[in-house]
Amino acid sequence: MSGSGFGERFRVTTFGESHGPGLGCIVEGCPPGLVISEEDIQQDVERRRTGKSRHTSQRREPDQVRILSGVFEGATTGTPIGLLVENQDQKPRDYRNIADRFRPGHADYSYLQKYGRRDYRGGGRSSARETVMRVAAAAIARKYLRQETGLEVRGYLAQLGEIPLGFECWEAVEENPFFCADSTRVPELEDYMQRLRKSGDSVGARINVVASGMPTGLGEPVFDRLDADVAKAMMSINAVKGVEVGDGFASVVQKGTQHRDEMTPEGFLSNHAGGVLGGISTGQDLRVSIALKPTSSIRLPGRSIDLEGKPVDVVTTGRHDPCVGLRAVPIAEAMVLLVLMDHYLRQRAQNADSERPGPLVPGQAGE
Amino acid sequence: MSGSGFGERFRVTTFGESHGPGLGCIVEGCPPGLVISEEDIQQDVERRRTGKSRHTSQRREPDQVRILSGVFEGATTGTPIGLLVENQDQKPRDYRNIADRFRPGHADYSYLQKYGRRDYRGGGRSSARETVMRVAAAAIARKYLRQETGLEVRGYLAQLGEIPLGFECWEAVEENPFFCADSTRVPELEDYMQRLRKSGDSVGARINVVASGMPTGLGEPVFDRLDADVAKAMMSINAVKGVEVGDGFASVVQKGTQHRDEMTPEGFLSNHAGGVLGGISTGQDLRVSIALKPTSSIRLPGRSIDLEGKPVDVVTTGRHDPCVGLRAVPIAEAMVLLVLMDHYLRQRAQNADSERPGPLVPGQAGE
Amino acid sequence: MSGSGFGERFRVTTFGESHGPGLGCIVEGCPPGLVISEEDIQQDVERRRTGKSRHTSQRREPDQVRILSGVFEGATTGTPIGLLVENQDQKPRDYRNIADRFRPGHADYSYLQKYGRRDYRGGGRSSARETVMRVAAAAIARKYLRQETGLEVRGYLAQLGEIPLGFECWEAVEENPFFCADSTRVPELEDYMQRLRKSGDSVGARINVVASGMPTGLGEPVFDRLDADVAKAMMSINAVKGVEVGDGFASVVQKGTQHRDEMTPEGFLSNHAGGVLGGISTGQDLRVSIALKPTSSIRLPGRSIDLEGKPVDVVTTGRHDPCVGLRAVPIAEAMVLLVLMDHYLRQRAQNADSERPGPLVPGQAGE
Amino acid sequence: MSGSGFGERFRVTTFGESHGPGLGCIVEGCPPGLVISEEDIQQDVERRRTGKSRHTSQRREPDQVRILSGVFEGATTGTPIGLLVENQDQKPRDYRNIADRFRPGHADYSYLQKYGRRDYRGGGRSSARETVMRVAAAAIARKYLRQETGLEVRGYLAQLGEIPLGFECWEAVEENPFFCADSTRVPELEDYMQRLRKSGDSVGARINVVASGMPTGLGEPVFDRLDADVAKAMMSINAVKGVEVGDGFASVVQKGTQHRDEMTPEGFLSNHAGGVLGGISTGQDLRVSIALKPTSSIRLPGRSIDLEGKPVDVVTTGRHDPCVGLRAVPIAEAMVLLVLMDHYLRQRAQNADSERPGPLVPGQAGE
Repeated sequence: MSGSGFGERFRVTTFGESHGPGLGCIVEGCPPGLVISEEDIQQDVERRRTGKSRHTSQRREPDQVRILSGVFEGATTGTPIGLLVENQDQKPRDYRNIADRFRPGHADYSYLQKYGRRDYRGGGRSSARETVMRVAAAAIARKYLRQETGLEVRGYLAQLGEIPLGFECWEAVEENPFFCADSTRVPELEDYMQRLRKSGDSVGARINVVASGMPTGLGEPVFDRLDADVAKAMMSINAVKGVEVGDGFASVVQKGTQHRDEMTPEGFLSNHAGGVLGGISTGQDLRVSIALKPTSSIRLPGRSIDLEGKPVDVVTTGRHDPCVGLRAVPIAEAMVLLVLMDHYLRQRAQNADSERPGPLVPGQAGE
Repeated sequence: MSGSGFGERFRVTTFGESHGPGLGCIVEGCPPGLVISEEDIQQDVERRRTGKSRHTSQRREPDQVRILSGVFEGATTGTPIGLLVENQDQKPRDYRNIADRFRPGHADYSYLQKYGRRDYRGGGRSSARETVMRVAAAAIARKYLRQETGLEVRGYLAQLGEIPLGFECWEAVEENPFFCADSTRVPELEDYMQRLRKSGDSVGARINVVASGMPTGLGEPVFDRLDADVAKAMMSINAVKGVEVGDGFASVVQKGTQHRDEMTPEGFLSNHAGGVLGGISTGQDLRVSIALKPTSSIRLPGRSIDLEGKPVDVVTTGRHDPCVGLRAVPIAEAMVLLVLMDHYLRQRAQNADSERPGPLVPGQAGE
Repeated sequence: MSGSGFGERFRVTTFGESHGPGLGCIVEGCPPGLVISEEDIQQDVERRRTGKSRHTSQRREPDQVRILSGVFEGATTGTPIGLLVENQDQKPRDYRNIADRFRPGHADYSYLQKYGRRDYRGGGRSSARETVMRVAAAAIARKYLRQETGLEVRGYLAQLGEIPLGFECWEAVEENPFFCADSTRVPELEDYMQRLRKSGDSVGARINVVASGMPTGLGEPVFDRLDADVAKAMMSINAVKGVEVGDGFASVVQKGTQHRDEMTPEGFLSNHAGGVLGGISTGQDLRVSIALKPTSSIRLPGRSIDLEGKPVDVVTTGRHDPCVGLRAVPIAEAMVLLVLMDHYLRQRAQNADSERPGPLVPGQAGE
Repeated sequence: MSGSGFGERFRVTTFGESHGPGLGCIVEGCPPGLVISEEDIQQDVERRRTGKSRHTSQRREPDQVRILSGVFEGATTGTPIGLLVENQDQKPRDYRNIADRFRPGHADYSYLQKYGRRDYRGGGRSSARETVMRVAAAAIARKYLRQETGLEVRGYLAQLGEIPLGFECWEAVEENPFFCADSTRVPELEDYMQRLRKSGDSVGARINVVASGMPTGLGEPVFDRLDADVAKAMMSINAVKGVEVGDGFASVVQKGTQHRDEMTPEGFLSNHAGGVLGGISTGQDLRVSIALKPTSSIRLPGRSIDLEGKPVDVVTTGRHDPCVGLRAVPIAEAMVLLVLMDHYLRQRAQNADSERPGPLVPGQAGE
């Protein structure tokens, strides 16, 4: 394989560049009989679309998803689902000025080192635009898992730069362009982003994702652990620099008596583990947190070199997000969904008929 | 695949339980002609062995590695390398008392949920003992990469519980049982561990790993990024709860002007990215940091339930590490080595003949 | 994975149904820098197109291939290549009469057993139309291998029903609609096919494929042998029921002294092995032969059952090939190309730097 | 992956050389709860063991299989099963005389071309001795499939050189060293083999394998078809040069009216397809036939070259089978079992919950 596919039993393979003709993917392994339409997929794709608020990139892409195969008479057939989004608002000429130089913090230099050539139009394959297909494919997983198991995967903005943001309720998340779970903080964020945009700089963010209604037994020892696959999935998102499961780095200073989640017949008493023990789901909420770096595409000049190794200044024009974290919630949810869908089918392959006890505890400590 | 293999072109598949007959692995994809002996492998395996200091588990395992195939007349043949370590110091009866109950914070409950049965002898497959084979296999990668590219992968203890530990020099790391890179701090650590052991409790740790002499161009867009595969590799180690590449979670509060690593003809001016841009190596040092939770195997009683869902108290006897982080440095190095070896061979498959420019900058900002 | 992808390092994943919106594929692993255009691909696709002679299906599909990604400024970038052909001449209503019954010899019954539902429009995913993407993807491999190694993969019709057909020259193959390598036999074949078409029946065929200019060392012990992967590739083509490498079934009656290919400093004295020993290429011509069954889509009525298990007669209308073997030559070549490309890149990954001797004999016995 | 593993959900990875310390494998994906012992496995391994009759190699290997992991308290745990056979009767010095030259028809030349070096001791990795692990792993699949589905996989010798051999009954197969399904022919075979052995030459063979009690719906469109995976599995066996499913090459001269298997409410009226339509099992018997070439290890001298390309004569000493076909029946059965087990689990992953109709016809035409 060459890196553009994810998953074993529910496998998504993507193609496409930021300013090429379009983006697409093939979804393999979706069980037959799932009722699915382009509208179902479009709904999730809309959540990550650019140009919806002034705080994100102003590129106007309708991101209209076409289903090209694998669905017949309204339901999946079990054969591969081909999805396609044609690009509409490409502006490759915005990038001609960086064709001969490397933007600091971008993949320009590393791609050239790898391939000996690069598609400089908006980062080509390294653009965050590629993630539209992750979200589209995950919409299928979301619908399937919700119907089969009641599983819900939801994320929210947990920190914007130096501003930590608490969790109030899931409803709030969909009501503001920041995916903030506390409506009272929205004006503060509006203000912060406006100042940031004016400054020409960008900033990092932290996002939390929670999967509730988790089946038990997902994940495989010893390498393909549920948390290991989540870590890979998350780190494969552009700009992500850190991943935590459960208490994450806070565990470093904890004692064993404090961290271990005790159990009673009424359920777990805490969820420091984040829903995974030994790489396998316990039925508690899966809790994941990620760090996103500040966008490197900023209009403040930076030092760099050109193709001949000579010093140059680079100013990034084009349309960019001053905080990629703001649009990353749907993408982070998508990656968790892809991992869970894959492991759900893997678990079914191997252990469908084992005499498993079923959850021994009624609920979970949750968030 | 079923989760016990790692890597595509350099693939390690492991088997074995903590208190079963032994542990083994098959290493596929090692190029032919590498001079390698059991001693070469043993050397790395020794570094993670238990029973060497009073601060780690007192289980006495010689961990003698046998090469069963793939090496002929002192060098690899290109065919699979079979490795075997037979267990010597099993004490399965230590675990009979937990056969009917779940140790809090262990994989007991999740394994039962997955498989409907579990090998309760020391955690069976979920034991950290399994990692001996990761270290053995990675010893082969270490020798190969060192010879071919000059690459070095080294780790150290960066924090023990609440005690942060700086980096002084690599030599110090090998001179104390804590893998501490600052010899002056060793008495403090001795003292801390002694008190911890007496208390019966355990504590978390942070470990840093640095790969220097990195080839450029390793990693694949968009899912099999170098950092994504590192994240998976790290999170697949027992007790790891968080992974950072470069500045990691510190990136959340950074500005773009601060985070982006500017370049000059003399090299990168910083290394906030940790050696990876767009998932592909830049030639700078790869910098990775992980959080390890406190061991759940402690002798202080914890609440749990038994196989019938009834409340019980659990006390973990047996021989355990009060801080798994102390022995995790060789394991963390091993996982980084496995990722780098795999991507080195993958890069060679695809891009061997591309007219790649070679590094355009002389050095790197490094650590 | 779910069955719609082929190859490890050069991986082709396809989607699409016979009478759906279109067919597409993603080609991963093509090295960067290959000059390739839609015309290059179209040329190979034309060779398998329907509606070009009266001896094949009359469905008129332009089969116009679009490159959607992975090619920039005329050359491959190393990232995935997305290819798309939109269907133009669908006639799904031709198939409404078989929606409730199983055509004998078709995949109707087995698909329903597998998925619980099926796309009955022309066989949906089981249609030979799916192979257009194999040919398109293989055109990229053909161009790459030809440039890098001088490798040529060519096939011809070796038997039509009871008529065996000898090999005269490769030029002849492209000059008649039968891919017959002996021009003098063409009138006989025209006549035979005309009578067959009138009879309403169909017939089987045998095709031979030869790869000349073979690199040595392709193939992996012990499962992913070159011949094993060729066998899978060939048997994955619709209607193929048998595969031979080298002397194939004729080997059963041979003696060891007769079969073994002796060597002299001037080269191999024969090629009974077909260019593969121990699953690895010797540099001799790779010789493969396949058997194709007679098409099951014939207008002579056959006994079958309907969805309720009741007896029915089935008459296949629609547009079909009376001998699928006639159009299978480009498809068989394509599959050999995909295998060779994949193993060429795999060999390069592992053994790029081994001190290999290079071929020790100047030529080969060849065809 | 590097070629030594087979299967996706039931994956067997093997290691070991003919005259090295031993042979082993890791079996991943076996569902938990299967009662299995070393004796269960030994029973199948015995069937392929050498030295049992004077018609096969006289190498005396006990082939004692040890289970090193994955089985606890008599049943599988769901984690990887490690199997090991230590070699006992190695005679590496038998091969010193061929260390500097290539045996005609062996993998000596191709391995050297691939790797730049080779283990010349009895062919090293290319030896048929490697297949002991295939049989051991398949014994687990056999027991599982028999219990779960009633599936039986059985093979017999269908032709020895020019002597075709009919099928009388399965009981006969186990009662003679030829795996001949017709006891009345045994004296003729004894006689033939005696003359062959005296002549110093070897001969080819044909083997038929039949899987009865087949589940429907196994196999995946479009590449991982059941028959395609069977073809690969079979061609991966040493000495196999051809594979047929159903009528195989006989299909070439058949008409569509003759080949297509008609259906009635009482079942299929014939089984020309061999139990597979569109790559997916129909529930009819899976019928497979393979051609094995004559052994190349014969004591009659053959022309070859040495490592410097100079002409030499090669005489193969050591202990060899004059007809490898005689011991290939258990190996061929093993490979079919591995394919069926893998596809059984794959089918379960994807389609466990689809509303599948269940077989619509009561029986099958069968053999």
